[in-house]
Amino acid sequence: STKSTKLAAGTISVSQEVSNKQRLFFTDPISPGSIFFLPNGAKIFNRLIQFMKLQQQFKYGFQEVVTPLIYRKSLWEQSGHWQNYKEDMFRVEGHDNMKEEYGLKPMNCPGHCLIYKKFDRSYSELPLRFADFSPLHRNEASGALSGLTRVRKFHQDDGHIFCTPEQVENEINSCLKLVEMCYTKIFPFSEDEGYFLELSTRPDSYIGNLEIWNHAEDVLTGILKKCGRSWRLNEGDGAFYGPKIDIKVRDHSGKSHQVATIQLDFQLPERFDLRYKDRDNTYKKPIVIHRAVFGSVERFMAMLMDSNRGRWPFWLNPRQAMIIPVNTKTTEQVKKSHALLLKLRGMNTNDDLTPIALNSFHFNAEVDDRAEPVGYRIKDALMKNYSYLIIIGDKEVETGRYAVRTKESRELEHLSTDEIFSKFCELEKNYA
Amino acid sequence: STKSTKLAAGTISVSQEVSNKQRLFFTDPISPGSIFFLPNGAKIFNRLIQFMKLQQQFKYGFQEVVTPLIYRKSLWEQSGHWQNYKEDMFRVEGHDNMKEEYGLKPMNCPGHCLIYKKFDRSYSELPLRFADFSPLHRNEASGALSGLTRVRKFHQDDGHIFCTPEQVENEINSCLKLVEMCYTKIFPFSEDEGYFLELSTRPDSYIGNLEIWNHAEDVLTGILKKCGRSWRLNEGDGAFYGPKIDIKVRDHSGKSHQVATIQLDFQLPERFDLRYKDRDNTYKKPIVIHRAVFGSVERFMAMLMDSNRGRWPFWLNPRQAMIIPVNTKTTEQVKKSHALLLKLRGMNTNDDLTPIALNSFHFNAEVDDRAEPVGYRIKDALMKNYSYLIIIGDKEVETGRYAVRTKESRELEHLSTDEIFSKFCELEKNYA
Ligand SMILES: [Zn+2]
Ligand SMILES: [Zn+2]
Repeated sequence: STKSTKLAAGTISVSQEVSNKQRLFFTDPISPGSIFFLPNGAKIFNRLIQFMKLQQQFKYGFQEVVTPLIYRKSLWEQSGHWQNYKEDMFRVEGHDNMKEEYGLKPMNCPGHCLIYKKFDRSYSELPLRFADFSPLHRNEASGALSGLTRVRKFHQDDGHIFCTPEQVENEINSCLKLVEMCYTKIFPFSEDEGYFLELSTRPDSYIGNLEIWNHAEDVLTGILKKCGRSWRLNEGDGAFYGPKIDIKVRDHSGKSHQVATIQLDFQLPERFDLRYKDRDNTYKKPIVIHRAVFGSVERFMAMLMDSNRGRWPFWLNPRQAMIIPVNTKTTEQVKKSHALLLKLRGMNTNDDLTPIALNSFHFNAEVDDRAEPVGYRIKDALMKNYSYLIIIGDKEVETGRYAVRTKESRELEHLSTDEIFSKFCELEKNYA
Repeated sequence: STKSTKLAAGTISVSQEVSNKQRLFFTDPISPGSIFFLPNGAKIFNRLIQFMKLQQQFKYGFQEVVTPLIYRKSLWEQSGHWQNYKEDMFRVEGHDNMKEEYGLKPMNCPGHCLIYKKFDRSYSELPLRFADFSPLHRNEASGALSGLTRVRKFHQDDGHIFCTPEQVENEINSCLKLVEMCYTKIFPFSEDEGYFLELSTRPDSYIGNLEIWNHAEDVLTGILKKCGRSWRLNEGDGAFYGPKIDIKVRDHSGKSHQVATIQLDFQLPERFDLRYKDRDNTYKKPIVIHRAVFGSVERFMAMLMDSNRGRWPFWLNPRQAMIIPVNTKTTEQVKKSHALLLKLRGMNTNDDLTPIALNSFHFNAEVDDRAEPVGYRIKDALMKNYSYLIIIGDKEVETGRYAVRTKESRELEHLSTDEIFSKFCELEKNYA
């Protein structure tokens, strides 16, 4: 699992500011460090997870699992968390006489080991890659809690790969490929260097023996030397169970933050006595790779806001299009505006039993038909960071082709309803 | 929120049997009453939630929110849960000196009240409809735990509607419409009666005053009398905060089980001091409607398995198509089989930075190219409940049109790769 790093105070206030303007999320002392995602924030959060699920499942061969949140104390003793991570964990118990003692999970790894162990595993099943988007809880000190970045409840795009020693290099290279896609193509945070890599080695408090640690560090060093990107050493910052490659990006102030992580673990297979039957019918121990690409989805959202200041790309924007009838007293203009709205939202409000189809497109569109001058409403929509403005006057009603502009350019394109819908579909499909 | 009902022992063993054959889920004493969904089970679980999100958002105007799982004790005192529901709740606390005391949420309602209360609300915002798919925990007695139905951790397709008294009837009728779509069109459990309705009235242990209870019961009775379906009275089985309409279906043995629920609540708005500014600028109290259509998604899955015995409809089937090359020694047949596999799965395993597109279709297809007779492999795929078998022999390789059959009929249709893909897309879009 991954360790959260703190964002600069500036980054926190930027994301809080964006949230206040766009009603994305809030926190409340009734649940310190847990985020309430409002509808617009939940849209971005869900969309990010949807993106990552697609890449992991259909490009990188992960299988999603859904796992429990509370586990008996004995599991955490077995995993080593009770000894090494106890202060960061929440205890759970019933109100009944049994008083069974549970830990609320801070990481998914032990649960994935249980799934691995549930069946006899053969070499032919490996590498086995589990993805999990469970909520995780870590009991950060209450004084340090703030916004999306210093939280107690968060979600990771978490995954664990169970593989043979021979498969480690390939698997880590695949992880690095997905990192490359995310941080250069889909979410390029900084134009000059993009992301950078660090090797975090054995910390003072660790489990397992030195020889295995040294071997694991050698494996990662070898991969980094071959990967073609520059990297640096971050001595003593590894997880208690193994060394890791951390992927970092810079915020607007130049401060670096960990996002993705790839961790090599020889301890967990030992502690959970994991095995697979090899070609020669003997049992061998798999290696576990912990990896996350966003890291904490909440923290990743804060990084996005730090970088975009609320100007979301179309596919993530909770405000994709504002439809503006020029004269709100002209019935036809208002009627056409609302018809376009339903079409773009992909809504079916008929009083029938027809379901909304799977994989259909639904855009975040609104109509502004307040009795205000059209110039005022255009300015307002621009200020609110709508990706597109669609303006419907008499001429547009007559021709059925509406005036479409982006927030960046005043240039108008005249498009039919179907053309607008297709254009938006293409933008979303391409993560534009 | 909804109350879980127990399924018959027979229903439990049916779903456990289906799960064992199809590797859908398991439970483990390390987390009693929490389900581990394996990849195939997670697919069904996620698909059900995806279906419900689409209907709620784009046909019934719900907005999804994501809310904390742990809240300070004082919230549960305010909501009345600490007094009326304490035995069913888990306590949570840190390991540090602070020992703050939290409750792990058994219901989403108090969290939604906090979101409502976060902003000044106007009559023009109502009805405000929040949807939430959070994991919920209820500390059921450990002796009673079993399979998907007697659980401690589960997910609801939960929703709360905040509305004016005048809007109640319309809102409840909309809920009944969605119930109708689900239980007659998409998931018809029983052919003769489908689902049936019950009015559950004031229980012995209740909060609030009698007059308000009587009024709420009158409102629900009035709606039931007008709705055109038969219903019956279930005296004293209401929630502690209000009366409700329960929607029930029958399992294979004829025993009835609650699935959906619609609950009217005048207490929560009182306890959380909720209000909205009306047209006349005075503040008024909204009414809260709690509703769920699947109820517990886990229990709903058990009901589905009880009814389908593992023969999932195409759109829910983790085994949608098995591709079988007739002669596994013929390279071309095997090659074409794997090319079709990639196309149906919508995979892109290229070593490039092209992402998998949003809203793309991905079918659960496999290839059986084991060195076994073709008849054996066909029989095996039928037994495993694959929806479609796609058979590729020399003639199919030559023409590029593959032999497609359903599990029910031996009749073969010869289709190109694109035709198969389109056919499958249509099936999924229509929840076939
Ligand atoms: Zn991990
Ligand atoms: Zn509720």
